[in-house]
Amino acid sequence: MIVVLKQNASELKVEELMKRLRGMGLDIHQSRGTHSTILGLVGDTSAVDIDALHALEVVETVKRIQEPYKNANRKFHPDDTVISVGDAKIGGGHFGVIAGPCSVESREQLCSVAADVKKAGASFLRGGAFKPRTSPYAFQGLRGEGIKLLLEAKKETGLPIVTEIMDLSQLFLFEDVDVIQVGARNMQNFEMLKELGRLHKPILLKRGLSSTLQELLMSAEYIMAGGNQQVILCERGIRTFETATRNTLDLSAIPALRQMTHLPIVVDPSHATGHASMVKPMAIAAAAAGADGLMIEVHNDPAHALCDGQQSLTPEQFAETMQAVNAVLPFACR
Amino acid sequence: MIVVLKQNASELKVEELMKRLRGMGLDIHQSRGTHSTILGLVGDTSAVDIDALHALEVVETVKRIQEPYKNANRKFHPDDTVISVGDAKIGGGHFGVIAGPCSVESREQLCSVAADVKKAGASFLRGGAFKPRTSPYAFQGLRGEGIKLLLEAKKETGLPIVTEIMDLSQLFLFEDVDVIQVGARNMQNFEMLKELGRLHKPILLKRGLSSTLQELLMSAEYIMAGGNQQVILCERGIRTFETATRNTLDLSAIPALRQMTHLPIVVDPSHATGHASMVKPMAIAAAAAGADGLMIEVHNDPAHALCDGQQSLTPEQFAETMQAVNAVLPFACR
Amino acid sequence: MIVVLKQNASELKVEELMKRLRGMGLDIHQSRGTHSTILGLVGDTSAVDIDALHALEVVETVKRIQEPYKNANRKFHPDDTVISVGDAKIGGGHFGVIAGPCSVESREQLCSVAADVKKAGASFLRGGAFKPRTSPYAFQGLRGEGIKLLLEAKKETGLPIVTEIMDLSQLFLFEDVDVIQVGARNMQNFEMLKELGRLHKPILLKRGLSSTLQELLMSAEYIMAGGNQQVILCERGIRTFETATRNTLDLSAIPALRQMTHLPIVVDPSHATGHASMVKPMAIAAAAAGADGLMIEVHNDPAHALCDGQQSLTPEQFAETMQAVNAVLPFACR
Amino acid sequence: MIVVLKQNASELKVEELMKRLRGMGLDIHQSRGTHSTILGLVGDTSAVDIDALHALEVVETVKRIQEPYKNANRKFHPDDTVISVGDAKIGGGHFGVIAGPCSVESREQLCSVAADVKKAGASFLRGGAFKPRTSPYAFQGLRGEGIKLLLEAKKETGLPIVTEIMDLSQLFLFEDVDVIQVGARNMQNFEMLKELGRLHKPILLKRGLSSTLQELLMSAEYIMAGGNQQVILCERGIRTFETATRNTLDLSAIPALRQMTHLPIVVDPSHATGHASMVKPMAIAAAAAGADGLMIEVHNDPAHALCDGQQSLTPEQFAETMQAVNAVLPFACR
Repeated sequence: MIVVLKQNASELKVEELMKRLRGMGLDIHQSRGTHSTILGLVGDTSAVDIDALHALEVVETVKRIQEPYKNANRKFHPDDTVISVGDAKIGGGHFGVIAGPCSVESREQLCSVAADVKKAGASFLRGGAFKPRTSPYAFQGLRGEGIKLLLEAKKETGLPIVTEIMDLSQLFLFEDVDVIQVGARNMQNFEMLKELGRLHKPILLKRGLSSTLQELLMSAEYIMAGGNQQVILCERGIRTFETATRNTLDLSAIPALRQMTHLPIVVDPSHATGHASMVKPMAIAAAAAGADGLMIEVHNDPAHALCDGQQSLTPEQFAETMQAVNAVLPFACR
Repeated sequence: MIVVLKQNASELKVEELMKRLRGMGLDIHQSRGTHSTILGLVGDTSAVDIDALHALEVVETVKRIQEPYKNANRKFHPDDTVISVGDAKIGGGHFGVIAGPCSVESREQLCSVAADVKKAGASFLRGGAFKPRTSPYAFQGLRGEGIKLLLEAKKETGLPIVTEIMDLSQLFLFEDVDVIQVGARNMQNFEMLKELGRLHKPILLKRGLSSTLQELLMSAEYIMAGGNQQVILCERGIRTFETATRNTLDLSAIPALRQMTHLPIVVDPSHATGHASMVKPMAIAAAAAGADGLMIEVHNDPAHALCDGQQSLTPEQFAETMQAVNAVLPFACR
Repeated sequence: MIVVLKQNASELKVEELMKRLRGMGLDIHQSRGTHSTILGLVGDTSAVDIDALHALEVVETVKRIQEPYKNANRKFHPDDTVISVGDAKIGGGHFGVIAGPCSVESREQLCSVAADVKKAGASFLRGGAFKPRTSPYAFQGLRGEGIKLLLEAKKETGLPIVTEIMDLSQLFLFEDVDVIQVGARNMQNFEMLKELGRLHKPILLKRGLSSTLQELLMSAEYIMAGGNQQVILCERGIRTFETATRNTLDLSAIPALRQMTHLPIVVDPSHATGHASMVKPMAIAAAAAGADGLMIEVHNDPAHALCDGQQSLTPEQFAETMQAVNAVLPFACR
Repeated sequence: MIVVLKQNASELKVEELMKRLRGMGLDIHQSRGTHSTILGLVGDTSAVDIDALHALEVVETVKRIQEPYKNANRKFHPDDTVISVGDAKIGGGHFGVIAGPCSVESREQLCSVAADVKKAGASFLRGGAFKPRTSPYAFQGLRGEGIKLLLEAKKETGLPIVTEIMDLSQLFLFEDVDVIQVGARNMQNFEMLKELGRLHKPILLKRGLSSTLQELLMSAEYIMAGGNQQVILCERGIRTFETATRNTLDLSAIPALRQMTHLPIVVDPSHATGHASMVKPMAIAAAAAGADGLMIEVHNDPAHALCDGQQSLTPEQFAETMQAVNAVLPFACR
């Protein structure tokens, strides 16, 4: 961490600051220039509050050099993390596909889709029981009943299930859920992240709508600092000025995160593009760019889906997409 | 709501769609052009799911004409909402100032600041007990103990208190809190909004980091749909590419929201700018533009604040800012 | 185009508006609801000024249904446009790679890189003679001298050349340039676009830093409206909040533009990511997603490049990238 | 400037780098930590190319401490710049208002508006002769003829005129124009900025649609580096996700720029909001926040304006706005 002092900083105040910093176990290297003095802080700066330093009268600016995340940092954990659930694996060379309907609507719908996506090669079943909807007047999900149906579909197909939690008060319902999803709008729901950090099951953490990759990793850090190291990161598109797509899928997040962290990276082309016709090209591109997996919405009757029908693939389209992805995988950039 | 049909839409499918729409109690006006057919939907379209319509094979595009919010809509409630807590009022011509430290740190700190801001003219005391911090290694607030201290400061000064809830599991601690704040990162925590909609106390709802005003109103709608009509909207800056300020304060939100809704609008120049030196000019500007109130961070010793010191005013600076705001208020644009 | 009238719009004013619209050759379909009246305008609305309609007292809002671009619109020109320069082709199934240094620095540098990229399979040579630099104190390019060197390299290697124009006063120097590039910062330099519309040579039009795809197509429309139909679109990353990459490469622009327009789409992973290590994964991903070509920066000695060294590939890295791209191309999504 | 070296950087390469930096006249302070070595560069770093440093194998990251602008920097020119044209002044305590129609349409229109705005207290007349329009099919301005009409209106009213240049080929027409405006889309048209730097007349430089304040100052620096110190900065709203306003007016740019630069700051609430009804509140707010002036669109018949009618004030509304602004000015934050 670099602290740049103001030109006219009083000796006394600077001494006070340096004492405070040394008290935090940091070594200080001082460089005096004509226009400014620079303090280089050496040691573990992850607990140093940048804002607090900025507030000091003698400080002109503060720049962080070391990443503020530790558990998620590849520098300290060079090997890829592999997430295993039953036979399914994601990360470290294992490519995993999570597929299923946006929202669980009925036993028939879910089991039919589950059978179809399994046949096409998916290794996880997804389905929303609790649905975050912008409008209070829109369908809010089957909730507890939805979780029950997911567990039935799991029993029938053997596919481990992935579903979203929206509030900690729902946690007791997730005991038999294999992977708990944290949605984009909850990426910085810090109380929830802390609680999930006490569990012993994988968390699929979606990137916030306008979050940076560092912020995503800081949210993973919240979970990992609690003891739960099983975090799957999910790029699902960020908000930009573009309107031709629902969000903008940031595929450069794959090589960027690959360097920053050892955690597996999954891409969701359905929410990112918002259009079924764009899911296949973006799925192939994500695989080619080196993603560890995909999350894709599949519905047996998109035109009558209760949620996100326009971005859902039919089972046939999904099977076709899987074939195309499998053809590209051997040439993927890893 | 306008539904534009595809050029080659089959008669049968269009009939099916029109039947479905009529089943929702909507009237349909049809316009046939050479390149496309347009359906004008008349009636209460707030429950119509735009995404579901987009998913239909015959639909080219859908455009909403009516606002999707009802309770918050000025069209249906022309008169300004006034929020009253004890003697303090915000909205409908009443200008209210909420001031206090970013986080509650100790009894001494809080009571000292509370006395100072009251003297300078604040009508509410703010202070964070639960603190949403990007890093799990940063100070997380005094939590339950912080709420207790706020209630003591209230007793001492008579100022009603405003403090943030971060998770529903904390709700039981907020029984004696006067105004519950929903932070920017929780603006779309829909389960929390629903639960707060069942209370009978004012909710201060902060705009999300990259939310539109319509999304802010849809979140207010979640609270209001539950029965709680006491919502105060708070503009606290949005994320932009600018780095000279922490966020970009959107003061045009004031006249824009004024037209869209009857709810009171409060501006937080502290979080928006992130620099104490910019709080005063932005506070005056907000007052001039017609805001119903301000939310300002004040600390007795910003250099040693545990949180957000760089954007906190000293009590002297706050008193000066209040004077400047009061001088401008008679000329404000309402 | 849809015009929604205000609830209380005077009959007289509405009549006046309808007369004005009919005077523009448009047919009008009227739908009267309880809360609003909707006018559906049928005919060629590309010349209708939306802002002018918005300014009218009786108008609540205006929504465009038809795209405002005609020449670039796939609806009116279903077949892919193919751009040919000598033996090189881009579009309609022809994949073309444009490679070379960010800026032309010397005869040796340019000819050496040109020979290398040709050998690795590039079909065009790029090199900047005029350089748009954020700082007036940075290297501004060899200018006229740079164009001369490019023409020499073309003579030596046979590769057609692509280089950027920054101002119309430089146009006379571009007579023998094969493809004129319009940079991201000039995408809405409308006077320049008009002038380039009078030429008979291909224009490579880069997407603006925060432009939408529709705005990109409107800029292409400026060139095409002048008579020059040879426009190559280039996605080169857009500005987002992310800082781990220089810009955010929007690969969903490929399938989105494919539907909107018949023009070829080229992707520049070098400027988009800003890091040499991310160029290969993004190049493969772009090819997989169905791009018509790539634009890649290659330098014989990136560490001493006068411009953008950190994102330049060495000739060896470029050759490796080309191999990887060629392996993926047969499985690309078209 | 701070250069952070990679952990495993070879001694030899580091020596080479330090030699190169010393060759640029810089002093180097070295701090060795356990994880990284930091070089603090002392001296004039404005010509150092950050990208070039990033490209080096031994460099982990580079952070700029000193601002890259010199002429525009308040640190080196503490006193406010005052721009004078005839009797009109902007900056250093002088508040100047620039008003007039979006585009010059006719002699009658222009002279009528000019007389009205002068009467209401404007000190400059604005009017567009060359109009940057997103669509090639929209009205493009009266061009040369428009400049002539502006000069006639100047003769009639005595008001100095401000009008936009779109291309250097038009420069000869601007000889008698008092203030040349550079539009938002041309803020980084570097060739134009360089040429305007050779003139001896004030340039009104508008902030780009998604530009940072530092980028705005770097564009001012282009003009000033050429010798022309008369630059007026104009905040006109930036692109955000908000759709209720045309752009988002960033009023915190006023106090932020005030600290960064000595140049005068003018605010354009017309383009920023896009709605006539929001111009007055934002004009007052800008004045309160300490702006040096305003730029406001006024039209005698907004409903029939050829351009931007919806954001134009009538002469009556403008007079009212001026009164409100004048009432607030004595309490403005300076």
